[in-house]
Amino acid sequence: MTEPLSPQLQSSQPERISVQTLETAIPGSVGIVRTEYFHFEEPLPLDSGQSLSDYTLAVQTYGTLNADRSNAVLICHALNASHHVAGYSEDDPDQLGWWDNMVGPGKPVDTNIYFVIGVNNLGSCFGSTGPASIRPETGKPWGAAFPVLTVEDWVRAQSRLADRLGIERFAAVMGGSLGGMQALSWSITCPDRLAHCIVIASTPKLSAQNIGFNEVARRAIITDPEFHEGDYYAHGVVPKRGLTVARMIGHITYLSDDDMAQKFGRTRREPAENGAYRYDYGVEFEVESYLRYQGEKFSRYFDANTYLLITRTLDYFDPARNTGGDLTRSLSAATADFLLVSFTTDWRFPPSRSREIVQALLNNERPVTYAEIDAPHGHDAFLLTDPRYHGVVRAYFERIDKALKLSRTGGHHE
Amino acid sequence: MTEPLSPQLQSSQPERISVQTLETAIPGSVGIVRTEYFHFEEPLPLDSGQSLSDYTLAVQTYGTLNADRSNAVLICHALNASHHVAGYSEDDPDQLGWWDNMVGPGKPVDTNIYFVIGVNNLGSCFGSTGPASIRPETGKPWGAAFPVLTVEDWVRAQSRLADRLGIERFAAVMGGSLGGMQALSWSITCPDRLAHCIVIASTPKLSAQNIGFNEVARRAIITDPEFHEGDYYAHGVVPKRGLTVARMIGHITYLSDDDMAQKFGRTRREPAENGAYRYDYGVEFEVESYLRYQGEKFSRYFDANTYLLITRTLDYFDPARNTGGDLTRSLSAATADFLLVSFTTDWRFPPSRSREIVQALLNNERPVTYAEIDAPHGHDAFLLTDPRYHGVVRAYFERIDKALKLSRTGGHHE
Repeated sequence: MTEPLSPQLQSSQPERISVQTLETAIPGSVGIVRTEYFHFEEPLPLDSGQSLSDYTLAVQTYGTLNADRSNAVLICHALNASHHVAGYSEDDPDQLGWWDNMVGPGKPVDTNIYFVIGVNNLGSCFGSTGPASIRPETGKPWGAAFPVLTVEDWVRAQSRLADRLGIERFAAVMGGSLGGMQALSWSITCPDRLAHCIVIASTPKLSAQNIGFNEVARRAIITDPEFHEGDYYAHGVVPKRGLTVARMIGHITYLSDDDMAQKFGRTRREPAENGAYRYDYGVEFEVESYLRYQGEKFSRYFDANTYLLITRTLDYFDPARNTGGDLTRSLSAATADFLLVSFTTDWRFPPSRSREIVQALLNNERPVTYAEIDAPHGHDAFLLTDPRYHGVVRAYFERIDKALKLSRTGGHHE
Repeated sequence: MTEPLSPQLQSSQPERISVQTLETAIPGSVGIVRTEYFHFEEPLPLDSGQSLSDYTLAVQTYGTLNADRSNAVLICHALNASHHVAGYSEDDPDQLGWWDNMVGPGKPVDTNIYFVIGVNNLGSCFGSTGPASIRPETGKPWGAAFPVLTVEDWVRAQSRLADRLGIERFAAVMGGSLGGMQALSWSITCPDRLAHCIVIASTPKLSAQNIGFNEVARRAIITDPEFHEGDYYAHGVVPKRGLTVARMIGHITYLSDDDMAQKFGRTRREPAENGAYRYDYGVEFEVESYLRYQGEKFSRYFDANTYLLITRTLDYFDPARNTGGDLTRSLSAATADFLLVSFTTDWRFPPSRSREIVQALLNNERPVTYAEIDAPHGHDAFLLTDPRYHGVVRAYFERIDKALKLSRTGGHHE
């Protein structure tokens, strides 16, 4: 899984880091991209009290780091995404990056201007060290023994990656949903290391309902007889049934009721000629077929232990926990400028949750841009192309670029 | 399971049917009630094209049928409830009826005035014929071979019960959620047999999201290895894990986000002294403990095949299906007066769904009373005691009573 490091990225002259584009496949795309694997030998202390003796992070980069290393943008991913943010991956040429509509030449996060970094989080299952990785002490997969991580642990690991890349301060750290939590955490735990913090479709902490859905998903996985207490690797199986159900639940919460009504309504899958129902428990409605397909597809590529881990990371995120529940106080250390975006039909992390963050930032007199997009697509809207949403992000990054140019020519950032 | 019929209920003089109260246990309660089992020998044709050669319905009654048999109220139940609507059941003296706050002496549906009937639906698992019953042809439980039923099939079975009880016309047919669908179906399929139709927290048909949640629950059950394609009875097991997950999902959809926030928030179950997290997948938050408890409790008493069946019955309900989707036209046969109640925080069947029914009734110039209750408790609000909600139902039943008295004294129902 671990490949030799790219010579560019190992270089002691990080200004020479260049986009890993081998070929530009489609207009506006970063093209075909190679994944780099960064190995870290220094133990990483974790919030749980445990530590990882060494670990690998899977990384992709797009665009070119400028001479003063001021144009780097870190993209943080949500539950099931990865470092593969844009373009096509050399090792999986059919799969477009999960935020390709957002990141690329001429796109809202313009790789002609910015050096964009995608990193697979620790504990995930796409090349970074996680539960499926071999544990050095045992020579076997970690399984359920892999430590439970926090968003803060991720930020710690990501900041070491920034060190390695020679990036002292990001132009922006950005993410949607759980990715937004990481961006928010960067602004609190490493305030000097980012100029802008972009938090999309996120929340300062999960609600009881959010935790409830996570818990049901976890129970579906853990009670699957093929889970084997997390050591299913040794049994040559995966808890496919549990993972499928978990993903089906998740998927419903990513879509809005209206969006599902519009996409599927009560459309039948294969109605009899006279329109009669099947009167059984097979697929009767399109929505059933869609959810089964999504669940089964997911269960073929996603690691069950990672699903447990990342839902727990979500549950635990609560930066105001260290300030007696006072979000304003927990954000008082932040020095970044902020962009927050929410979507009206997102019932997982509704606009009211983003507004809590906006209010806490305003209480701290931080510069905040906030956009509430009236989009029908629920939580998933943050991944979709909406001209108003993308317009807001584009305008914000143009502003960052202007400020960078100003500061380079000796002007002041207003 | 089938007991001899009660002599009163077999009587050819149904005006003598009296409340099955053996003892009045608590003030305002119907006391301890006996369940009656009605056996029907005439085959019941079903919407699926199949038929049941014979079947039993478990029934409880409260109050006394009056001389002109005009004071009968049929209570229809939702997914996991039963004929045990009020008081304590003789066979389960610890369990209060599911709508005891609504039905009893001096309660909104006053058993000093009305003769109230609770009936366990066909296909359920509390005494009426269902998948766990012995199939006469094989001498074994029906299992997955039990026919999939529709709301209309239930109404057909209930109308035969009304015949047996000598009730030509109900003062009201009433229900919440799936129970409300049955009341609505009565008003369409047997318009002459009810004076009032009371539909609470219900919908004219499920949305794609509703069907989606049902489908995930079914997949959790069906993919449990102990489901054995529905023949788990023969294996001496139940698909407990699947049922537990199914119920946990359902439970989240019955509560509002706000209500869960208020009840549980992020309250921890057994936090360490320093407030540290557990960093594992055990119970960390109260909401996890609550959902696990609810799920496991449910899996001990509810039949998995019944869960499949009733969720499918919910999916299939769509009275406007016979009129090309035109709800107004499908309700044009109705002659009852209507009461509809919805709850603002019910996101399973939100007020907008009740308003669709109200609009269709108004289009038909039916008398409709509609109350939208600003209650925090989500879908479950229909089971809870809210003075405004109960006030509306009480006032409505007082109006029914006045009309009944007027018609008895030769006056006219306005």
